[in-house]
Amino acid sequence: MSTLLDETIARIRPADGEARAAALRALAAKTKPRGSLGQLEELAATVASIRRTATPGRLEAAVLVAAADHGVALEGVSAYPSEVTRQMLANFESGGAAVCVLARAAGAKLVVVDAGVGAPTANIAQGPAMTPADAVRCIERGIECADDLERKRVGLVGLGEMGIGNSTVAAALAAALLDVDPADVCGRGTGIDDEGLARKVEVVRRALAANAVVRSDPLSALAALGGFELALLCGVALGAAANGAALVLDGFISSTAALVAARISPAAADAMIAAHVSPEPGHALVLGALGLEPLLDLGLRLGEGSGAALALPLIDASLAVLAEMATFADAGVTDAGR
Amino acid sequence: MSTLLDETIARIRPADGEARAAALRALAAKTKPRGSLGQLEELAATVASIRRTATPGRLEAAVLVAAADHGVALEGVSAYPSEVTRQMLANFESGGAAVCVLARAAGAKLVVVDAGVGAPTANIAQGPAMTPADAVRCIERGIECADDLERKRVGLVGLGEMGIGNSTVAAALAAALLDVDPADVCGRGTGIDDEGLARKVEVVRRALAANAVVRSDPLSALAALGGFELALLCGVALGAAANGAALVLDGFISSTAALVAARISPAAADAMIAAHVSPEPGHALVLGALGLEPLLDLGLRLGEGSGAALALPLIDASLAVLAEMATFADAGVTDAGR
Repeated sequence: MSTLLDETIARIRPADGEARAAALRALAAKTKPRGSLGQLEELAATVASIRRTATPGRLEAAVLVAAADHGVALEGVSAYPSEVTRQMLANFESGGAAVCVLARAAGAKLVVVDAGVGAPTANIAQGPAMTPADAVRCIERGIECADDLERKRVGLVGLGEMGIGNSTVAAALAAALLDVDPADVCGRGTGIDDEGLARKVEVVRRALAANAVVRSDPLSALAALGGFELALLCGVALGAAANGAALVLDGFISSTAALVAARISPAAADAMIAAHVSPEPGHALVLGALGLEPLLDLGLRLGEGSGAALALPLIDASLAVLAEMATFADAGVTDAGR
Repeated sequence: MSTLLDETIARIRPADGEARAAALRALAAKTKPRGSLGQLEELAATVASIRRTATPGRLEAAVLVAAADHGVALEGVSAYPSEVTRQMLANFESGGAAVCVLARAAGAKLVVVDAGVGAPTANIAQGPAMTPADAVRCIERGIECADDLERKRVGLVGLGEMGIGNSTVAAALAAALLDVDPADVCGRGTGIDDEGLARKVEVVRRALAANAVVRSDPLSALAALGGFELALLCGVALGAAANGAALVLDGFISSTAALVAARISPAAADAMIAAHVSPEPGHALVLGALGLEPLLDLGLRLGEGSGAALALPLIDASLAVLAEMATFADAGVTDAGR
C-alpha cells in the first residue's frame, strides 16, 4: 500500500460522540417540543459529530461527480451505449445535466472528474477490471480531490457518478462484499427490460466466477470488480472522512464505493449520510450494511449525485436549526419540558 | 354564505391536465433516463398543472403561519400552557422559532397572522367553538391573505399554525369529517404522556357528543369543532387554489384545515402538495382522504409550517429541473430511451 492511502487511513477517527451529545443538548433547549424535528435533529447531531464540534455552523457544500467507462458495457447490460458517458461529461461541463441544475439550486459547487472516460476498465465478466496498483492510483486521486475540497473549506461532500455499465460493476462489487446473490443486487439501472435484467444478473454471476474475490480484502475486490470512478469515489470517501467532512451518499453506485471505503476503514462510515434510498434493490442492502437511514425516498434512480444534491438543503436546514433557533430562555417561552 | 367566499369558491378550477401532460413530455426529453427522477418529476408536473402552464419557471415561496388560542386547552390536552401561543407569536416576530429559521434557509417569506391569540374559541368539549358567522369571517381573512400573497407574486404557499390545544381541535374535526374513531386521530401532539393521550381521546369524544356535526356540511363542522387559525388556513387554501398557487401542507393540523377546504370545494385538493407525513396518527388518514403522497417522512411533529418550509427546496428543485435541464437534442446525447 502506498504512502498517501496509508496516511489517510491513519487519519480517520470515529465520529465525536461528545460533540453529538452536546449538539442534541443544544437542540433540546430550542423553542420546540423535545425531539419534534425528528430525523432533522439526528442529522444536525451527526454532522456535529463528524465536524467534532457542537457548533458546526452552516457549511459549504460540493457534489463531486466521477465518470468512467467500463469494459463490461460490451455485454449489453445498459439501455445506453458507452458513448453516452463522454456525451454526458460534455453535458456536465455545459451545465445542462440534472446534477448541474440540482447542485446550483442547492447552492453547491459541482466538481466533475474524468476517472477514465474513453479508457474503459477490462470486462469484469472475463477477469479483473484493473490491477491493484490501478485501484490504489484511482483511490489516491480521490483522496487528492477530497483534500482539494478541504482546502476550499467544503464541509459537505456529495458523491456522484456517471459511467455506462457501472450499475453492473456496483452489483458485482456489492454481491461480493455483502455475500449475497447477484439477483438481490441487480436492478434496472437506467431502464433495461426483463431480458436485459436477466442478462445483467448472468453477467454478474460470470464476473464473480471469473474473479476469485476475498471478501476480507476490499482493495482486491475493488480492483477485480470495480470501475475507475468507483475507486476514485472510494478515495474521496476516505479523504473526506480523514478531513472531517460529511459525506453525502447518492444512489446504489456511489453508496457501493462508500461501502468499499468503510470496509477499508470502518470508522469512515461515521462520516456518511445517506441522501436517499433508490429503487435499485442493492441500495437498501448497502445502506443497511453501512448502518445508514436514508433522508429521502422519492424513487430516484438517476445517479450523477442528483439525490445527494437534493438532500443538501435538508442538511443545511438541520444546521440552520442548530445554529440559529432561539432557546426557551432566549425567547422567554415557558418550557413545559419533556 | 358571503360574497367573498362564494366568489372565491366559484373561481376554483380543477388542475390543468394538459399542462401536466406537457410538463411530463418536456421532462421525458431531458438528458436522463425516462422517469429516473421519480416523484420529483411528478412534483414538477403537479405544479405545472396548478399553474396551468407547462413552463411554470421557478416560483416565489412563502409560509403563512396562523396562530390562535383554544378554549379546549383548559381540559389539559397539551403539555404546554396556553400562554405559550402568545410567547411563540413573539418568537416568530423576533425570528427565533423553527419556522423562521427554516423559511429563511429555504429563501421563503414568512407571514404570521394572529387569528385569535389571547381570544380563544369556546371549549369544544362543551359546545360549538364559534358561530358559523365567525367561521366565515376567519375564512375570508384567510382568502384575503392568499390574495395578498398573489399580489406579491408568491406561487408556493406553505401552511403553518401555532395554537396550544389545536391538535385536539384538529382531531375532533378530522374524526367528524372522516367518520373515524377519535382514538385513530389523536396523537401526542407536543408530547403528552399516556394519561394525557387518554384524556385527549375522551375530550374529543365529548366534543363530538356536544356538537351534532353534519359531515356533509364542512362549514358547520369547522364552526363547531375548529379553531380560528384552522378556519383562517382553510381560507388561505381556498384563496390559493382560486389564484392558481400551489399549497404546501405541513402537519396534521394544517392538513386538516386543508381537508375542510377540499370538502367545501373538492377541486381545491388539486392545488395541494403534502410536504411530509408526521407521526400524528391522523395525518396519514387526512392525506389519504386528500389523495396526496407526502414528500418527506422524517418524524417531524412540530407544526408551525416547519415541514412545509423543509419541502420548499424539493419543490424548487423539481421546477429547476423542468426549467433548466438540457434535452437530449440540445446536448447531443444519444437517446436510447423509450
